[in-house]
Amino acid sequence: MQNENLLKQIEFIKEIDKLKYIQRRTKLLGSDRNENDAEHSWHLAMMAIILSGHSNVNVDVLKVLKMVLIHDIVEIDAGDTFIYDTSKNHTNTDEELLAAKRIFGILPQEQAEEMIAIWEEFEEGKTDEAKFARSMDRLEPLLQNVSNNGGTWQEFGVDYKKVYNKKQIIAEGSTEIWAYAENLINESVEKGILKKDDTL
Amino acid sequence: MQNENLLKQIEFIKEIDKLKYIQRRTKLLGSDRNENDAEHSWHLAMMAIILSGHSNVNVDVLKVLKMVLIHDIVEIDAGDTFIYDTSKNHTNTDEELLAAKRIFGILPQEQAEEMIAIWEEFEEGKTDEAKFARSMDRLEPLLQNVSNNGGTWQEFGVDYKKVYNKKQIIAEGSTEIWAYAENLINESVEKGILKKDDTL
Repeated sequence: MQNENLLKQIEFIKEIDKLKYIQRRTKLLGSDRNENDAEHSWHLAMMAIILSGHSNVNVDVLKVLKMVLIHDIVEIDAGDTFIYDTSKNHTNTDEELLAAKRIFGILPQEQAEEMIAIWEEFEEGKTDEAKFARSMDRLEPLLQNVSNNGGTWQEFGVDYKKVYNKKQIIAEGSTEIWAYAENLINESVEKGILKKDDTL
Repeated sequence: MQNENLLKQIEFIKEIDKLKYIQRRTKLLGSDRNENDAEHSWHLAMMAIILSGHSNVNVDVLKVLKMVLIHDIVEIDAGDTFIYDTSKNHTNTDEELLAAKRIFGILPQEQAEEMIAIWEEFEEGKTDEAKFARSMDRLEPLLQNVSNNGGTWQEFGVDYKKVYNKKQIIAEGSTEIWAYAENLINESVEKGILKKDDTL
């Protein structure tokens, strides 16, 4: 029985290797090489470890780590959705739910259920851990775009208002980190790497 | 003060982006694309979450995750050392220690000290958490080489005995996982993707 569980777990571990091929729109710092979802997930996990002391409330860091490490695994089937793509729904699409059931479903049942529940908790963004995990997910591409002279903002014509609206949920996880992020966004407008208005 | 700490933390988070460029010898499953250290660290973290129930003793999973997420950060300065390179010392080289001090030293002092201590604990491999974390680090390339018709074993002429000797420390973390790994190694010899003896 134990061994049967281990075989399922190894199969899952091999399956998720595919996350290393899922390209994001954002690029590595000061680079034109796209980041992939596995690298992104590692970076968010490191950020969560380093920055958890700035969370508005005490969070269960182990749960936050589980969230950020698994949050994009559904993209193995469903693909990466660009955050500023207004034609798509960004939360818990049917396609992503199917993907979660297929991929986490490779695991022994109890573990599959735990992973799907953690992924759903992250997607819903209501608990303290989900709020903090989501603030990490919003902060990383901000650092990347600032380092890359506007990065995807420039490439896809995204303006200040859209960026500000997407990023302000960082405050739900950490008002301290949001103060830093808000300042970065304002500086980006001043530097001319983020346009103030769509019509300008 | 708080803000000063945050600035140091952000600087560290940007510095470790470089881990995404450090290439390992091993390749992705069924692929000829080399894995990088950030992807590798993410994969070990996922393995630790999924497989921790097989640990010989109960481990602090959060500590194991910190270990596997940071264990290769020193390679930003010191580079990747191939595990079967007999010309190099593999534990805690002076170069790696300097790298740890420089890179983790970007963090606020208390956090820098915590990270260096966790890295050293992993390197020493004596605590239960370090033993389990190291078993993950040995298992992943085994899965990769088996999936890649021998992978680095074939590429660098590594034989059964060397592989067996390097991999058997998996048993210190989990005898269950070692039973699985030992079987994989033996099957690899039978399949002809791992040579039994250097002289054959």
